[in-house]
Amino acid sequence: MIGARKLVIFDDNAPLYADLLSDALQTSWSLEVGPNSTAWLGEHIADADAAIGLKLPPELLNLATKLKLLLFPGAGFMHRDPMELPEGCRHANVYEHEIPIAEYVFLALLTLVSGQAESRAAFRQGNWLGNGRVGGEPRRELFGGKLGLIGFGHIGREVARRAAAFGLPTQAIRSRSGTRACESEGVSILGGPEALPELLATSDFVVVACPLTPETQHMLSGEQLRLLKPHAVLVNVARAEIIDEAALFEALRDCWFAAAALDVWYRYPSHAGEGLHGSRYPFHELPNVFATPHSSGWTAPMIARRARQMAANLDRFARGESIERVVLTGAWRSPCDSAA
Amino acid sequence: MIGARKLVIFDDNAPLYADLLSDALQTSWSLEVGPNSTAWLGEHIADADAAIGLKLPPELLNLATKLKLLLFPGAGFMHRDPMELPEGCRHANVYEHEIPIAEYVFLALLTLVSGQAESRAAFRQGNWLGNGRVGGEPRRELFGGKLGLIGFGHIGREVARRAAAFGLPTQAIRSRSGTRACESEGVSILGGPEALPELLATSDFVVVACPLTPETQHMLSGEQLRLLKPHAVLVNVARAEIIDEAALFEALRDCWFAAAALDVWYRYPSHAGEGLHGSRYPFHELPNVFATPHSSGWTAPMIARRARQMAANLDRFARGESIERVVLTGAWRSPCDSAA
Repeated sequence: MIGARKLVIFDDNAPLYADLLSDALQTSWSLEVGPNSTAWLGEHIADADAAIGLKLPPELLNLATKLKLLLFPGAGFMHRDPMELPEGCRHANVYEHEIPIAEYVFLALLTLVSGQAESRAAFRQGNWLGNGRVGGEPRRELFGGKLGLIGFGHIGREVARRAAAFGLPTQAIRSRSGTRACESEGVSILGGPEALPELLATSDFVVVACPLTPETQHMLSGEQLRLLKPHAVLVNVARAEIIDEAALFEALRDCWFAAAALDVWYRYPSHAGEGLHGSRYPFHELPNVFATPHSSGWTAPMIARRARQMAANLDRFARGESIERVVLTGAWRSPCDSAA
Repeated sequence: MIGARKLVIFDDNAPLYADLLSDALQTSWSLEVGPNSTAWLGEHIADADAAIGLKLPPELLNLATKLKLLLFPGAGFMHRDPMELPEGCRHANVYEHEIPIAEYVFLALLTLVSGQAESRAAFRQGNWLGNGRVGGEPRRELFGGKLGLIGFGHIGREVARRAAAFGLPTQAIRSRSGTRACESEGVSILGGPEALPELLATSDFVVVACPLTPETQHMLSGEQLRLLKPHAVLVNVARAEIIDEAALFEALRDCWFAAAALDVWYRYPSHAGEGLHGSRYPFHELPNVFATPHSSGWTAPMIARRARQMAANLDRFARGESIERVVLTGAWRSPCDSAA
């Protein structure tokens, strides 16, 4: 396609979305799709106007002179320093994971609170455990419990929307200090990090949904975890390091509170097929832990929505319109430029 | 308590709610609490103004001459013939199970649709199946799917309220013929039973939540089940007999549609401890069945709400106010009365 802009996708997950993205584009692009490899990218980046990938390797900076748009195919972003990107290159991301993550939060809460897992296992053997007429302890409900959100961004909003329908009043703190108490979209915002003890002590269900930053790292220490109610359920869909690893294991092993759903971990495998537990502590042996391999947001509809959102940003770029969700703009100037 | 009205509770579950009910009463009552036994009831019913229990034995009719209120401690009712109750005795029921049942519906749908059960089992072994970065098929979401309700009563409304928050448009049919297509509370009502094929063919998730009547018995035959989409999930929280037993087993075994959550069964144990599967077909061996022992509504908060609702009806009775949720009024007259 002569004269078309060039887009390079260097992402091992590209096969999942490249066709969807290509179908959604309304402007002219020529696409090159390859793996997340410096060698491959080095051969394709020189004449690229835009790229999609996790991180631009520093050794390719002086090659990527035409690059004006780097799309990160997920939430968050890898580049934080403007000197890691060519001058004027905008770095934008995508969300869309907040929907499956909010669904995960309710799957986890309903599983841990309902006690139906035990009824299902017994019933497979013909035992009617949990049936009112032939015996069995009545179970708990979510209804009427108070939900506490640590963080009130995209994920927090989607969780709060569903919580309202389940009859759960929601309160939240933001991770920025200086946040004032207020009402927002039906949610009671208690304040910033200084309101964490109040949130923990007064919530029945606590969902961690804030970014990992120097301020939020180890925000939930043993001292904080001891504030949770005995029947409380904790859900972490943010980053593991927000909660102190040793304290969390001790809390769950010794039942300081009832249960936890953990989708994010303290260590990750480096490649497919590497067998590895997510912590140096045996969380996988605890009966009160709902543990998943950072899979809460990984759905086909999420990938399709991201492909459409990235295509829309590429169309905006091609039309000279303003790019959405820009998180950083590059400032690196090639030595040739500065010499000119 | 001299002069107080007398309430007799003949219900094996009475220990779960008698104190809650007694605490909630605002009018004066003397309570007698015992088992669901004709012998015990025969000794206590003669001077009772009101009773709570499953069914008044016919042989006690001529003893229950003072009885003016019979509360059924659940949804539905056992008496359908006015001649089974003393003249003027009102028979009223209670709901409150719609909240835990709606929670159950979302637990079941999220479990069956998310595929997280497989991820959880694998992750316990250190396998990161379902994690986007190290491989694994992206999963499904509820979001955007269409929910079809068979029945739009107390349960249907609570399900629809939660469905809206999950981003599921809801359509429903009512079990009464002659229902016209309309919009109601954000739900598209397609019509009466004649709209069942349309509902089945156009829904991604189908929830059976209508009463069992001669019209709804075997309403879902094999022919109807074949209309479901290949990825559809069926949930039955109403009564088993609404779906043909043999056809349902064949459909699930041969994957005519994706999966089912079944909380109601074709046979029940007569007493605690009797080991019994809920069907003559081995549903318990099918991997695509989420099976529970009619436990979806059995929660402590539900029992507490019912106790408060029954107390409120007893207070209304004592104050001469109108009773809520009356389903039948007795017409039996004792031979002495008719002789007078």
